[in-house]
Amino acid sequence: MALTETITSPRNPLLREIARAAARGTLTEEGGLCLAEGLHLLEEALSSERTVPAVVCSESTRNVMVRRLHGLKRLRLAVVPDALFAKLSTTESPQGVMALVKPPVWSFDNIFRARPLVAVLDGLQDPGNAGAIVRAAEAFGATGVIFLKGSVSPWNPKTLRASAGSLFRLPVMNALDPEVALAAFAQRRVKLFAALPHGGLPAHEQDLMRPCGIVIGSEGRGVSAAMAAACEPIRIATAGVESLNASVAAAVLLYEASSQRRLGRK
Amino acid sequence: MALTETITSPRNPLLREIARAAARGTLTEEGGLCLAEGLHLLEEALSSERTVPAVVCSESTRNVMVRRLHGLKRLRLAVVPDALFAKLSTTESPQGVMALVKPPVWSFDNIFRARPLVAVLDGLQDPGNAGAIVRAAEAFGATGVIFLKGSVSPWNPKTLRASAGSLFRLPVMNALDPEVALAAFAQRRVKLFAALPHGGLPAHEQDLMRPCGIVIGSEGRGVSAAMAAACEPIRIATAGVESLNASVAAAVLLYEASSQRRLGRK
Repeated sequence: MALTETITSPRNPLLREIARAAARGTLTEEGGLCLAEGLHLLEEALSSERTVPAVVCSESTRNVMVRRLHGLKRLRLAVVPDALFAKLSTTESPQGVMALVKPPVWSFDNIFRARPLVAVLDGLQDPGNAGAIVRAAEAFGATGVIFLKGSVSPWNPKTLRASAGSLFRLPVMNALDPEVALAAFAQRRVKLFAALPHGGLPAHEQDLMRPCGIVIGSEGRGVSAAMAAACEPIRIATAGVESLNASVAAAVLLYEASSQRRLGRK
Repeated sequence: MALTETITSPRNPLLREIARAAARGTLTEEGGLCLAEGLHLLEEALSSERTVPAVVCSESTRNVMVRRLHGLKRLRLAVVPDALFAKLSTTESPQGVMALVKPPVWSFDNIFRARPLVAVLDGLQDPGNAGAIVRAAEAFGATGVIFLKGSVSPWNPKTLRASAGSLFRLPVMNALDPEVALAAFAQRRVKLFAALPHGGLPAHEQDLMRPCGIVIGSEGRGVSAAMAAACEPIRIATAGVESLNASVAAAVLLYEASSQRRLGRK
């Protein structure tokens, strides 16, 4: 069964590593683990067969967690006082559970499997948007999501939470150099579209059945000039609105692709 | 030209009214005005021909604002010290401008004009999601958005900001009783769908060309039992994902409706 211990000092090495990763919005430095907050994400990690080396829970949830984790070998359960847990958490209303999860590692072969449909995040800053895009990408049959250098990390605890667990299943690559990404698309002859508010054909007139990627720009500045220059522009047919929220735009384009692929026509 | 004054005391009545409205996430108590933060929203308010009785700006942006507002009569420009402005603002990186805007007032006749397509928010709590839905609703030709009682206010400054100005143009009604809303749909014979993760036909097999409304539930609990009982279920065809982010789900359903209406077929 899980090895249970009680930690009361905020200077405990495990808690310090968690606090640092939460503050920086990345993986833990030593173990390279992501912080999955809340019971739902813990369940998603376990059902996705990810490795969960440790779970931290608050004193109040100790009994529930001991029962839940019963039978899981090689898992360390650290129980901390409620007040200390609240300080560790990055959420406003912490549920008293935080799992440390080994993030899956993916390659271009995973991203470009079968008939590729890839979302490429170009400087996206908001973890809520990035996570919602990964969630929508999985929902609409995308084969992967590429986070270009300068975007928020997929392993920021807030991105992971907004993905509702999709990050444990859908292939993603992080902090990719734009040139490396462009070369990978070119080499595999996968067409790249850039979502732009103006110009280009609307999505429903583009062929999204073919292997393709869609570049989604940052909330403030949109797609970078370097990426836009290498892509065909694509837009969403809208009325009276300059642009859409980044996650909404990405989801609608991926939905259009999934519709075309389901129907076998534009 | 605009009447410019300098305010240095946080106890000034105007600033206190703004602070109260920001804290409660509603209109100002006395004037019934909404807080539009940032230059973009001010421009949207002016171009949408909304009444802007007052603008508050930081000392640093005084010159820019005096020039921008030159020629606007009956507008009060209040300049406050930068530190005081930062305290007033609800954003993490305030731009130094906040407009007080008279929100438009709409009726069922506005919401149900032409061929109605109405988003109904049932308990939605997140202002970012609610604002993104209003933005998507305008983009995809919806005729209005109804905020049922228990949902976040459209006039919460964060909802307004996420709407990127769409709330100044698209008819919305706030804090409606569910029974009143249901009666309005029934009386006008406008079909109501409830977005549910399971059950019902997928959106692309439903006829969304007819006058209709789509109920979007809260982030945690989904559509309420009372609303679901009065609606036909509708779902989004997805793979491997239990549900979508609320604003993503709403936007995809509205996009599907706009696609059907554009093509004249499912």
